[in-house]
Amino acid sequence: MDYSQQSIELHARTRGKIEIKSKISLNAKEDLSLAYTPGVAAVCTEIGKDRKKSYTLTNRANQIAIVSDGTAILGLGNLGPEAAMPVMEGKSIIFKEFAGIDAIPLCINSTDVEDIVKFCKLIEPSFAGINLEDISAPRCFDILERLESELSIPVFHDDQDGTAIVTVAAVINACRVTGKAPETLRVVINGAGAAGIAIARLLSHAGVDDLILVDTQGAIYAGRPGMNPIKERIAETTNKEQRKGALAQVLPGTDVFIGVSRGNILTGEMIGSMNSAPFIFAMANPTPEIMPDLAYHAGASIVGTGRSDLHNQVNNALVFPGLFKGLLSTGITKITPDLKLAAAKAIAYAVEPTKEHLMPTTFNKNVVREIVAVFSESRELQPELV
Amino acid sequence: MDYSQQSIELHARTRGKIEIKSKISLNAKEDLSLAYTPGVAAVCTEIGKDRKKSYTLTNRANQIAIVSDGTAILGLGNLGPEAAMPVMEGKSIIFKEFAGIDAIPLCINSTDVEDIVKFCKLIEPSFAGINLEDISAPRCFDILERLESELSIPVFHDDQDGTAIVTVAAVINACRVTGKAPETLRVVINGAGAAGIAIARLLSHAGVDDLILVDTQGAIYAGRPGMNPIKERIAETTNKEQRKGALAQVLPGTDVFIGVSRGNILTGEMIGSMNSAPFIFAMANPTPEIMPDLAYHAGASIVGTGRSDLHNQVNNALVFPGLFKGLLSTGITKITPDLKLAAAKAIAYAVEPTKEHLMPTTFNKNVVREIVAVFSESRELQPELV
Repeated sequence: MDYSQQSIELHARTRGKIEIKSKISLNAKEDLSLAYTPGVAAVCTEIGKDRKKSYTLTNRANQIAIVSDGTAILGLGNLGPEAAMPVMEGKSIIFKEFAGIDAIPLCINSTDVEDIVKFCKLIEPSFAGINLEDISAPRCFDILERLESELSIPVFHDDQDGTAIVTVAAVINACRVTGKAPETLRVVINGAGAAGIAIARLLSHAGVDDLILVDTQGAIYAGRPGMNPIKERIAETTNKEQRKGALAQVLPGTDVFIGVSRGNILTGEMIGSMNSAPFIFAMANPTPEIMPDLAYHAGASIVGTGRSDLHNQVNNALVFPGLFKGLLSTGITKITPDLKLAAAKAIAYAVEPTKEHLMPTTFNKNVVREIVAVFSESRELQPELV
Repeated sequence: MDYSQQSIELHARTRGKIEIKSKISLNAKEDLSLAYTPGVAAVCTEIGKDRKKSYTLTNRANQIAIVSDGTAILGLGNLGPEAAMPVMEGKSIIFKEFAGIDAIPLCINSTDVEDIVKFCKLIEPSFAGINLEDISAPRCFDILERLESELSIPVFHDDQDGTAIVTVAAVINACRVTGKAPETLRVVINGAGAAGIAIARLLSHAGVDDLILVDTQGAIYAGRPGMNPIKERIAETTNKEQRKGALAQVLPGTDVFIGVSRGNILTGEMIGSMNSAPFIFAMANPTPEIMPDLAYHAGASIVGTGRSDLHNQVNNALVFPGLFKGLLSTGITKITPDLKLAAAKAIAYAVEPTKEHLMPTTFNKNVVREIVAVFSESRELQPELV
């Protein structure tokens, strides 16, 4: 089903998806005297004496910013900051519905790394965390690295680590269902942007050794011309056989296809060239690399996409609500590879998977709870964080 | 009554005053498919083709930013951005309650004019307007001027024009009650920051000719040493008799005291030196320049303060909800002196004033309606704005 027209009509009718709600009622002068002047002056003074009290006397502890420059909106590319807003509002209501977190979409008017870093530093006092979103590679890697070292609140780039965590969860459950071991898998990742690179890194951390990334110029291998520093770095630890060529040329003999670039680029024939009963994760949005029925027809044993309307949804929405709830509730500010992998396992083990129901649904309340538990346990192991 | 402890307890209990609310329900996969992926892609694409559609397909048309650097919080001074948040959250819930507007508090980590201007330019795509708040003078004048010329969405500095509009409304109603004519009033304004300067400008525009501003170094007059460029400019058109000296020295023989600086600096004796039955607007927050009972005892005919818990509240909260509703509903982006004066009159004439009930209350629904009407009428006179 094509949701396009219906979605446009919904958005036009509601004029977007979020609004502000007051936590207290304003019915009488007395309410204003407490929530506003003169009473509020004492609250400001308290925080002025100890800025950490902004976590207990304002909404800050439950409030994050979703920051985007609109350069990599879903699989649509660079449509500008205004066009990113519908996605950010969508994430905001998912944050609220599934984790109770107040997430403010801030789509900004610059694609410059320095500007974006500066922007996030400027808003730090108002938020308990920052979710970067739909910022294109390779800038997103620099931005995240800079912010992780320069801010004292946690920063998460959902297109990198959200996608990586949910993809690893899907691979784990595909292995559980089929009895394969992750260490034995030969994996091709189509797309070497934010998601592709982060997936490769986290799969490596999970013990998957045989990985090939493919970008628009074909397979990535050490020494290939025309690569940015991030690709050069990942080339050192992937594609050890130095396979070359386009996607169709590197797929034969592999077990897993992970698509995080453009829709409609995988054919049944290409799936036929893979090892028998491969896993196909066709996660480009809104149009998958191949539609599930075609993938199954070509011999796939497990098929997942990023879409809410298809089965086996492998979508960041399973990650970011619980992940931020974990961060905000524990005070952890750095998301280590071990934490990411533990979050992936928490998502995977939130259900008893089958081929047709590989993943927990977004509506499964266990998911957020299990991810939060991962952070709480990690927190207990590092009590000096308090 | 002292609201301090009660207000701190309220804020600690509710952990601030705002939260995000979803405008649509997320109960099933179908809801996610429309609000998020895949349906949302069509909405992004629509806006990508025509950025103005962000006003109809997202919450932008009803969404403004409240931007503060925390340098001039109420009358408390520079307590930093975290400490500004309780005021901004308070404004946010007032915006929502009285005008239905979604106002996002953004308290930022720099006091640099270039940074603040840059910040507002960065967030422009996400908002329909910007309310600057609690940014100290004289930087606030530069920032507002820069933003008025460099942004295409309306920018309003509440501490300047919000205070000026509500003060002029109060002076108008004091004249209506006592039968005096504004043109005959001799006015002293204590405080030559954002509010004091803006009040002087708007009172001049309203026909009040005899104005003296007083800062910490005494009366402002042309050629006085130690003034910033803004004070030098206002000195050219005020205090034509070149009166000099501290507040107590310039008050004798005047009709109106307007206080917008620090609390407890006006005495009954000083009021006694003014012309008979003066108007006293002691608007420092949270502590007025003089408490109303003392002012009345000293001979004041009309007394107002900024506080919600005292009678005759002369507070920006009467201005900013209606003003932004007027801006957002008409598409007007520049707030001219004529519009400001018309808004002041709209507030004044929303009630039949008495000495004890000089102003409409914040809860008077007429106020927002009348201010919006001012903008709508102005809009009809300038149809090229569409």
